[in-house]
Amino acid sequence: WGCRLCEVIDHFGFLEDGTFKQRYLVADKHWKQPAGPILFYTGNEGDITWFCNNTGFMWETAAQLGAMLVFAEHRYYGESLPFGQDSYSDSKHLNYLTSEQALADFAVLIENLKSTLPGAQHSPVIAVGGSYGGMLSAWFRMKYPNIVVGALAASAPIWQFPGMVPCGDFYKIVTQDFARSGYNCDANIRKSWKAINNVTSTVSGLQWLSEEFNLCSPLKNVMDTVTFKNWLQETWVNLAMVDYPYEANFLQPLPPWPIQVVCKYLGFDSTVSDYELLHGVSQAAKIYYNYTGTSSCLNMSQTATGSLGYLGWFYQACTEMVMPMCTDGIQDMFEPEEWNFQAFSDECNAMFGVRPRADWAGTVYGGKDIASHSNIIFSNGGLDPWSAGGVNYNMTESLVSIVIPEGAHHLDLRYSNDHDPPAVRAARALEVKYFQKWISQAKKAPQTSEPNI
Amino acid sequence: WGCRLCEVIDHFGFLEDGTFKQRYLVADKHWKQPAGPILFYTGNEGDITWFCNNTGFMWETAAQLGAMLVFAEHRYYGESLPFGQDSYSDSKHLNYLTSEQALADFAVLIENLKSTLPGAQHSPVIAVGGSYGGMLSAWFRMKYPNIVVGALAASAPIWQFPGMVPCGDFYKIVTQDFARSGYNCDANIRKSWKAINNVTSTVSGLQWLSEEFNLCSPLKNVMDTVTFKNWLQETWVNLAMVDYPYEANFLQPLPPWPIQVVCKYLGFDSTVSDYELLHGVSQAAKIYYNYTGTSSCLNMSQTATGSLGYLGWFYQACTEMVMPMCTDGIQDMFEPEEWNFQAFSDECNAMFGVRPRADWAGTVYGGKDIASHSNIIFSNGGLDPWSAGGVNYNMTESLVSIVIPEGAHHLDLRYSNDHDPPAVRAARALEVKYFQKWISQAKKAPQTSEPNI
Repeated sequence: WGCRLCEVIDHFGFLEDGTFKQRYLVADKHWKQPAGPILFYTGNEGDITWFCNNTGFMWETAAQLGAMLVFAEHRYYGESLPFGQDSYSDSKHLNYLTSEQALADFAVLIENLKSTLPGAQHSPVIAVGGSYGGMLSAWFRMKYPNIVVGALAASAPIWQFPGMVPCGDFYKIVTQDFARSGYNCDANIRKSWKAINNVTSTVSGLQWLSEEFNLCSPLKNVMDTVTFKNWLQETWVNLAMVDYPYEANFLQPLPPWPIQVVCKYLGFDSTVSDYELLHGVSQAAKIYYNYTGTSSCLNMSQTATGSLGYLGWFYQACTEMVMPMCTDGIQDMFEPEEWNFQAFSDECNAMFGVRPRADWAGTVYGGKDIASHSNIIFSNGGLDPWSAGGVNYNMTESLVSIVIPEGAHHLDLRYSNDHDPPAVRAARALEVKYFQKWISQAKKAPQTSEPNI
Repeated sequence: WGCRLCEVIDHFGFLEDGTFKQRYLVADKHWKQPAGPILFYTGNEGDITWFCNNTGFMWETAAQLGAMLVFAEHRYYGESLPFGQDSYSDSKHLNYLTSEQALADFAVLIENLKSTLPGAQHSPVIAVGGSYGGMLSAWFRMKYPNIVVGALAASAPIWQFPGMVPCGDFYKIVTQDFARSGYNCDANIRKSWKAINNVTSTVSGLQWLSEEFNLCSPLKNVMDTVTFKNWLQETWVNLAMVDYPYEANFLQPLPPWPIQVVCKYLGFDSTVSDYELLHGVSQAAKIYYNYTGTSSCLNMSQTATGSLGYLGWFYQACTEMVMPMCTDGIQDMFEPEEWNFQAFSDECNAMFGVRPRADWAGTVYGGKDIASHSNIIFSNGGLDPWSAGGVNYNMTESLVSIVIPEGAHHLDLRYSNDHDPPAVRAARALEVKYFQKWISQAKKAPQTSEPNI
């Protein structure tokens, strides 16, 4: 389902004059026209229907504000493929996958809606997004304040770029989540890497581990062990992102406070054997990968929902979205690994034939020098590792931070729930207050968007 | 002379990873380091040395502010050619000639200067530009407020785009300049088009006119007559742009108040014959083209200084910089001609293989919805036809307009002169006051541009 708008493939050049169909979803049940506000979800790296279904906050707010909802799909994801099935075929076809092009798509889409939908001409538009979508929301307000009157950037790590925040903070937060969720939980995960190295040093150990974890593809060698450890690390990260207080299905179907559940299997004292420890780790991993009991085996190549576009996101990380991460094994529970830009760049070059530009995001989106902008809410959850790269203090009167201490990744964007902590209820209420303020500001401002001729 | 910085050819895509050398000029004689301000000229469509020499205001202001001056050349002009001699060879090579790419060049250049020039790290940067360069200055502050603390946009027609201002205002102002500069001056020019049509209806008339105007290439047919009339029309426009109160050499070497001089030859009463009238017109045109008496003939293909890049500008007009113009022959002194976007688009397609996007500039640069931005001065001259597309009222406390009633095209950017009208002296003083305000604002603000790690 959904509507389609013809967008130019290249907003920033005129040689490539092809167009593609951008998908967007509209819900106008509660919209008070004329001039009722529009809440516009700036789609991120995935199928827009998935974001639509996971952004209950917008649905719950529509009635209160008399707002229309629009969910715009990001180019190169879901069904919005500039070159159809060839979109990912090579770096030539991937060349138009950038955040700047996506923001331009959003701008053109909104101008199109305003000029074609009866009653929308004077509708103030508010950008809403989570994660990379939240970064896009913030940047959209910064770069196109003519198009959106404000933005809610939920769990948006706009400072997770070189030179802006310490590269280790992300994994520190992951570690803290496990440390506070069960006795010795972080300590046992920290120990597990060595145990994996020990056990996988023999062929029989590789086989044992593969069976213990019920892996779809058994581990065969040291390379596979590296893959296995990366996959486990990503599993812990994902759990930190979705440590919600109630049963939910975002990246995976999970119980309430899933890290607490996971940590029940990781409460060993220091005397645990490698095999015993890894048995606990496998029980823990199965909470994440098989909570519903329907997985026949664990697939290391799929760590979360298939609605996200991993390849596209990796291309974006390999070009503009350069996000340094590092671990030291002391302040975090992972094997030490420095941030190595050159190695990353080489990997990108091998994979896509492109090299990342480390400083570009800071130059084009302002880094920490964004105080002259206005009307942006940065919300972050204390449990969310991405809050490490977020804006966690009020920069100005209208660039405000909302921190939800018990919140994981953009909890505030989800449907309300009986088990919501008070902080997220307060956050949502405050967010709506800002929306109302921006809307009334916009209604008071002279309507200069009309041609005066 | 000048310095060179390696810039990427495509800031908005990663497939084309080539670089080119962007030229910029630096004058640091008066610079008070550390942290003295930088006045940064956002180069427009021409050789940067020419803009450097014609922006005396910056030179005169440097001492007062203890400022460094930087003049950055716009890509595809002067010596800043992304593909060297091939830069204009086809639409493939021209593809990176856009205002967005130019602004990105400026941003990267400034970040580079700040990180490499000792003492520049905390220097507040102010963008300065005239005409298209003024548009770039304003847009630079809008899109990169992290890079520049404010902008002086002199004679910048940021609203000369579809749907923003009436298409006829530009030529109305040209006409008013002639109307106020001599008896019947506009009326006789309005009459001249018919006289040209009459005279050029015969072969001997074509010959007479060619000789009368001392044209380098004699007129041969009706097509040439059209070219001739376009050339004359452009001549009157150029005179309106450079109607300065003192002898100057901007587009051409000219006497003080050149339109008054021109109009001395165009003061006929209504009974004048076609030949008599056109003799007057030819005398008038020669003021513009041969004031110094050194031209052996008038060359219709060169209406102003060779320092401007006409082909590049035409490409930009054919892509982003779509500026509707029209005449009606009643409120202006020209032959009536409607704005015909389709015809223009077809011409662009024939010439460059590209088609203009009429609405893009409005979408990307905000059109009239720019009130949320800050720290931009829009200065305009009452005599300057480009003021028709400019910002001529204070939009907010920090988006201010300065009107110089007796000023032609960015008179305020020129060196001061004994014959300057009081309004331009006041304008310059006010501009410097705003500069000082922005600089002190910047010094008060926390230095967030430093990495905090």
